[in-house]
Amino acid sequence: MSNNFFTYEKFAQVGRARAGVFRTPHGDIPTPVFAPVGTAATVKGVPPRDLKELGATLVLSNTYHLYLRPGDELIACMGGLHQFMGWAGPLLTDSGGFQVFSLQDLRKVDDDGVTFRSHLDGSTHRFTPEKVMSIEENLGADIAMVLDECAPPTQREYNEQALRRTHLWAERCQKAHTRSDQALFGIVQGGVFPDLREQSARFLIDLDFPGYAVGGLAVGETKEQMHTVLDLTDQLLPENKPRYLMGVGTAEDFFEAVSRGIDIFDCVLPTRLARHGAAFTHSGRMNLRNLSLSEDKRPIEEGCPCYACQHFTRGYIRHLMVSKEILGLYLASIHNLHFLLDTMRQIRESIFAGTFEALKAEMLALLKLKSEK
Amino acid sequence: MSNNFFTYEKFAQVGRARAGVFRTPHGDIPTPVFAPVGTAATVKGVPPRDLKELGATLVLSNTYHLYLRPGDELIACMGGLHQFMGWAGPLLTDSGGFQVFSLQDLRKVDDDGVTFRSHLDGSTHRFTPEKVMSIEENLGADIAMVLDECAPPTQREYNEQALRRTHLWAERCQKAHTRSDQALFGIVQGGVFPDLREQSARFLIDLDFPGYAVGGLAVGETKEQMHTVLDLTDQLLPENKPRYLMGVGTAEDFFEAVSRGIDIFDCVLPTRLARHGAAFTHSGRMNLRNLSLSEDKRPIEEGCPCYACQHFTRGYIRHLMVSKEILGLYLASIHNLHFLLDTMRQIRESIFAGTFEALKAEMLALLKLKSEK
Repeated sequence: MSNNFFTYEKFAQVGRARAGVFRTPHGDIPTPVFAPVGTAATVKGVPPRDLKELGATLVLSNTYHLYLRPGDELIACMGGLHQFMGWAGPLLTDSGGFQVFSLQDLRKVDDDGVTFRSHLDGSTHRFTPEKVMSIEENLGADIAMVLDECAPPTQREYNEQALRRTHLWAERCQKAHTRSDQALFGIVQGGVFPDLREQSARFLIDLDFPGYAVGGLAVGETKEQMHTVLDLTDQLLPENKPRYLMGVGTAEDFFEAVSRGIDIFDCVLPTRLARHGAAFTHSGRMNLRNLSLSEDKRPIEEGCPCYACQHFTRGYIRHLMVSKEILGLYLASIHNLHFLLDTMRQIRESIFAGTFEALKAEMLALLKLKSEK
Repeated sequence: MSNNFFTYEKFAQVGRARAGVFRTPHGDIPTPVFAPVGTAATVKGVPPRDLKELGATLVLSNTYHLYLRPGDELIACMGGLHQFMGWAGPLLTDSGGFQVFSLQDLRKVDDDGVTFRSHLDGSTHRFTPEKVMSIEENLGADIAMVLDECAPPTQREYNEQALRRTHLWAERCQKAHTRSDQALFGIVQGGVFPDLREQSARFLIDLDFPGYAVGGLAVGETKEQMHTVLDLTDQLLPENKPRYLMGVGTAEDFFEAVSRGIDIFDCVLPTRLARHGAAFTHSGRMNLRNLSLSEDKRPIEEGCPCYACQHFTRGYIRHLMVSKEILGLYLASIHNLHFLLDTMRQIRESIFAGTFEALKAEMLALLKLKSEK
């Protein structure tokens, strides 16, 4: 294993926006990067060869879901997650913490870990930092995340309490983690409270993780609150490590967060929106079931080079959506993934070219129109 | 429009099995050919570029479904079915007769046509030969089928009555049909009754269609009855026209029917089986949800060059099926389509090589094992 793995190198910068590369055993990830989400070891409806063609370099998968089905030990026996899902590029697994804490009444947390019931069959399970490390090592992604406690971002007391556990667990995760071919990232928590965020960042920086996530955002706080947190973490986190904003994935958010030093993004939105019959466009979201599209001979977005837009009309895709044909979900997913992956590619190139601010202004103005076509 | 269109040329023959080409405005179809079915203007879950990669040359679409949704006039306005569904190769549309007669209590037939209720919303519609020709011309497939009445194959009286209508309607269809860039095929009916089949073939041959289908088979009669009918139609139908066995599509049937002079096949089975979690293999059908596959590192079929088998294990596909992930349907569909398209490719090559009988014996022996793996 080369010592070069899990190093971040910055190649260009505009203001606080940075373009660089994060090196992993399954390939270099040019950053900033958007990672499509493959919850159950598949980006819903999209074959790996299409992901590659779309320019995806990093795919996220969910530890909670894979632990429950088909099981992390089965995946290890099948050669690990890369081989199991047929994705040869870099992979990232979350810790499952976010999913477990989303179970609400079905989970109970204590200082040692969290006990929860499966959403599949109601069976009882327990995640501790050590258990989660064992699961993530079985999965074998290039980037693993520590177990953290996700608190509602604006509740002060809850966040104080959760932060204490998050830090205890970060230490235990680091101690339990053994795979040298897997980078373990720490997660800065603390809700919308600057002093808690600072306390969290300093604590985790002392533990010297190879990368840091900013967690607990995009879950109810305002955009201004998110930006304030990101401005702060940008100042605190080390320049020579990648920064990951978890669960954030609209084009608008990309620009605002890249401006605040973020390198890595993930979000289920492109495929989830597609399943709901909606498409990203530069003038807002398009409802692909809309009657007005039925004889529309234009592609979802004119000029878009994706497979869906190069070969199919809005009228056809509307017919597929209304007829509940799987191909409709596929084409909308391809388009939506292309939209975000291509936006990120443009962001990277604009940072190299020194034109990031102009691109940001242009794209945010376009996206603000948000007209339903 | 070249006069060469809609000519059939035979290049090789082994016994009664023939290899040749049928020329259409959207390309030459090497025969024998298997046509995947794209009922609602999409082969369920399979993008056109994949169909092309799989070697499909002819795709079938269903007039009944497209007439109801999105409507044949809308498709005409969108540039016709080829353009609408993004398939640049040859297309075939059935007449909708089979679907309408399958509606049982929801349809009423008279000599002029058939009145039926939509399975979508219960609305009342009427198909006459003239109406069906107008719909098929709006769709604009390379091959259109005449409206016929499909009778249960073993009921003598019903078949006599239906045959009279089928012949009346064939004449009216031919009279109403105007597009010179579309071939209209006649359909030989008559159930399992040799005298009715002969009467039907002779009547339709007199009308001089550019191709002939054998209808009303694979709907309840025995294999022996089907073979007897095919032996007869093979003797009666002209050598210089293509012969199409409607709705038949297992590998076993291909060999038996090609041996009896059939050139064209279609069937929904590859994609329908995939949606039910089953795969064709050379040793029978495989239930992809089977628990025994969960840690199986082999592809669906070892040695199979399809995308699914080259990149994914049975264990992974089982996980996708059990998790109701769309990618599972996609991979199984790709494999099943490959299985039938590749079987047909081998049949064509074996006719050229003079080894058809050996291939038939080998494949039928293999397929008879039919072990559930």
